[in-house]
Amino acid sequence: MLGLGAMSMPASLFDELTAIVGAGALLRGDEELRVYDCDGYTLERSRPEVVLLPRSTREVAAIVRACNRHDVCFVPRGAGTGLSGGCLPIRAPVMIGFSRMNRVLAVDVANRTARVEAGVVNREVSARVAAHGLQYAPDPSSQPACTIGGNIAENSGGPHTLKYGVTTNHVLSVQLVRADGEVVELGGVADDGPGYDLRGVSIGAEGTFGLVTEATLRLVPLPEAYRTLLAVFDRVDDASAAVSAIIGRGIVPAALEMMDALMVEAVEAAYHFGFPKDADAVLIIEIDGLHAGLARQAERIETVCRERGAREVRVAADEAERALLWKSRKRAFGAVGRLAPNYCTQDGVVPRSKVPEILRTIRTIAAEQGLRVANVFHAGDGNIHPILLYDERDRREVDGVLVAGRKILEACVALGGSLTGEHGIGVEKMDLLPLLFGAADLELMRRVRRVFDPDLRSNPHKIFPADSAGIEVREPQRRAAL
Amino acid sequence: MLGLGAMSMPASLFDELTAIVGAGALLRGDEELRVYDCDGYTLERSRPEVVLLPRSTREVAAIVRACNRHDVCFVPRGAGTGLSGGCLPIRAPVMIGFSRMNRVLAVDVANRTARVEAGVVNREVSARVAAHGLQYAPDPSSQPACTIGGNIAENSGGPHTLKYGVTTNHVLSVQLVRADGEVVELGGVADDGPGYDLRGVSIGAEGTFGLVTEATLRLVPLPEAYRTLLAVFDRVDDASAAVSAIIGRGIVPAALEMMDALMVEAVEAAYHFGFPKDADAVLIIEIDGLHAGLARQAERIETVCRERGAREVRVAADEAERALLWKSRKRAFGAVGRLAPNYCTQDGVVPRSKVPEILRTIRTIAAEQGLRVANVFHAGDGNIHPILLYDERDRREVDGVLVAGRKILEACVALGGSLTGEHGIGVEKMDLLPLLFGAADLELMRRVRRVFDPDLRSNPHKIFPADSAGIEVREPQRRAAL
Repeated sequence: MLGLGAMSMPASLFDELTAIVGAGALLRGDEELRVYDCDGYTLERSRPEVVLLPRSTREVAAIVRACNRHDVCFVPRGAGTGLSGGCLPIRAPVMIGFSRMNRVLAVDVANRTARVEAGVVNREVSARVAAHGLQYAPDPSSQPACTIGGNIAENSGGPHTLKYGVTTNHVLSVQLVRADGEVVELGGVADDGPGYDLRGVSIGAEGTFGLVTEATLRLVPLPEAYRTLLAVFDRVDDASAAVSAIIGRGIVPAALEMMDALMVEAVEAAYHFGFPKDADAVLIIEIDGLHAGLARQAERIETVCRERGAREVRVAADEAERALLWKSRKRAFGAVGRLAPNYCTQDGVVPRSKVPEILRTIRTIAAEQGLRVANVFHAGDGNIHPILLYDERDRREVDGVLVAGRKILEACVALGGSLTGEHGIGVEKMDLLPLLFGAADLELMRRVRRVFDPDLRSNPHKIFPADSAGIEVREPQRRAAL
Repeated sequence: MLGLGAMSMPASLFDELTAIVGAGALLRGDEELRVYDCDGYTLERSRPEVVLLPRSTREVAAIVRACNRHDVCFVPRGAGTGLSGGCLPIRAPVMIGFSRMNRVLAVDVANRTARVEAGVVNREVSARVAAHGLQYAPDPSSQPACTIGGNIAENSGGPHTLKYGVTTNHVLSVQLVRADGEVVELGGVADDGPGYDLRGVSIGAEGTFGLVTEATLRLVPLPEAYRTLLAVFDRVDDASAAVSAIIGRGIVPAALEMMDALMVEAVEAAYHFGFPKDADAVLIIEIDGLHAGLARQAERIETVCRERGAREVRVAADEAERALLWKSRKRAFGAVGRLAPNYCTQDGVVPRSKVPEILRTIRTIAAEQGLRVANVFHAGDGNIHPILLYDERDRREVDGVLVAGRKILEACVALGGSLTGEHGIGVEKMDLLPLLFGAADLELMRRVRRVFDPDLRSNPHKIFPADSAGIEVREPQRRAAL
């Protein structure tokens, strides 16, 4: 645990918080708190002193104001599916969970919007509006569990980002409880609203501006039809070349995903889709749109893949096969459990044309550390997700994962890419931010942060290497999961 | 002129500026400056003391640093096609024009990006990449003249915003010369970059954060095919209902534009497309995508329009007819010159479902002021553009335009809409901002502005009603064009 003993909360604050949410929505027992000590990034852990489960923006604002009065920091938490430790409490004794703020408040079919609370599960939104022929487009792999509030904090992507864009492209406005407890609505009905785009700068701020409690989401029509193709390659480089060639032909697939041999092996063992076990790489390519145009476009994609060396191209025969293919892809991380006791997913970006090069570099770096690596990623976006396999009981492997992760991201930046495509900085990549940003850039960001949270109370010690001037930030303890 | 006499620049600054850009790139004669005293918003005018035409980011940064040393404010100017007075110099003696920074620096076909200088004309970008099957999607009606830098300042839209989004959705990064002369690059290769989205908050900042000198643009594939339909209605309300019905059927047109009777009359007189002169409203509906799917979708649109009372639906027969139709639409403002000596274009937004209501309200408000009004607008976005006709020699009419403009925007806000869809606040709507934002919201924005420009030197006295605390801002003089 991270120095929490030294900053225990005053008893009077417990009383105030209990009065706000009720005893049934305040967790403080050791057993109760255990599940809140990490998110999907399990290399570091830290437990809050109390978890609150408010039911309204009013309650959230009251909690935040109480924390302000007592000079206590707080951290928001959605479903805990994040992959960079964004909701890890570091010197923030109060955790505010959104699991009880899970209502879809209104659906406006004519204007294609939905107003939701932050704790609504991503997939629930699309389920609620499907009958109207609409969907909420951003679809992170964790969409059966992750929440809209968490998606907004991390500006989440997903397989369909390639065509539809990320979270910020689908959130018209957010209700933000600022770090001082003021409630503001940022954004509006128009893409280009008056004044500065404070909506946009809040999305992806990882909870450091305050807590998003509600949002107005843009809905888009469900495509009339899909075609989902599986292309099988004997060489990863051929698969990468096919990705470039598809894009180069002016096709905009809805999704363009790649899995390498090790990933295919794990996924096939788990879900029995019928992936060939001897392939070096597969591409999952989905196009959507009007029924009439898809058949010919699918043929063009098949032709491109075969020209680039695909030994087999299969089209999902029906919706059931499509669903199984996507299940295999989206639960790929889960299947990795079959390969090793532990794994760490990295998240980096390279220009699309650099995908073959970064894949070779990843293999080399993993080999240097004596680690196995599986790759499943958004190839069309250049958004890589190497999964480093390890055993947490082996200290050498744990260290190797940390070294390899850093080297992979350094390679991404060297290729003109970036440190994260969709998972955020959290605690995981704080040390790496200076790879991409100079001191002046970081200072500009810190100053923006202080506009929203001058006292650095909302999700402190995230994103920036040492964001409290004059306060020594202890390096989060690098250790394996308990 | 706005109090410029009182703040003449020191002679030594002239010398420094001349040394930076050379005498041939410094304009200061009365005749030379005359064309710089307004943009497309001609109700207010103000002349800079000097116009500089730098050729590089280095020169821009040097100009800005010189202005800082002399405590002199500056204002950027693209092509001057803006419609809210965004580049009107108010107590900013130095104008920095971007007409000589007009190079496309690089086109990366594989990654679908272009790096351009701020002064590149919008349409030039698409022209340069068309051979690769690519385009730059945002297409303001002024695209043959307006510049990328101006588009970024205003976060410009255009007819194809409905499908493709506005400028911010197509700019991956910007190079910003901050108000203190520091050069920073904001944004990167990924939609969801690490840290805060300072790229996003800079786009639409109307030059108040500093000066954008370069940008990396996202390119998208040219559609394989288009279908462009003209639907003719005897009643505006039927046309509005058709807009809602098309969207309601899950169709996402690339563009969905409306022109009312007066607008059609002016456009037909100017461009002879063959619009029926007795129609109450026409819709221009464009769909794009794969060739195969378009015919059936066009049929669906035609069916919807006829169900809603269209008396005629025509499909553009070929590319020439499509081009003429779009020329008629995009040059509609020019055609208005035939109707009255002067006109003022408003820019507001309502939820799409409120289009019929706002059109009725606009008619009532204009009638109250004894003014004629023509409407041409992005109906699919709910982004209205009523054009108020007047004669600047008639003081009563000028006052009526100002009153009507304000009332129309108040009505937009009352319907759940917004003060501007794409033209910005500039000087035109500073007084109206409090209709939409409370004091706390405005203070938040002011504080963000001060992060980038603590001394309020870059394009001062814009957006915010009185953005220099302690400085009395003279109300811009409301008067007709000279």
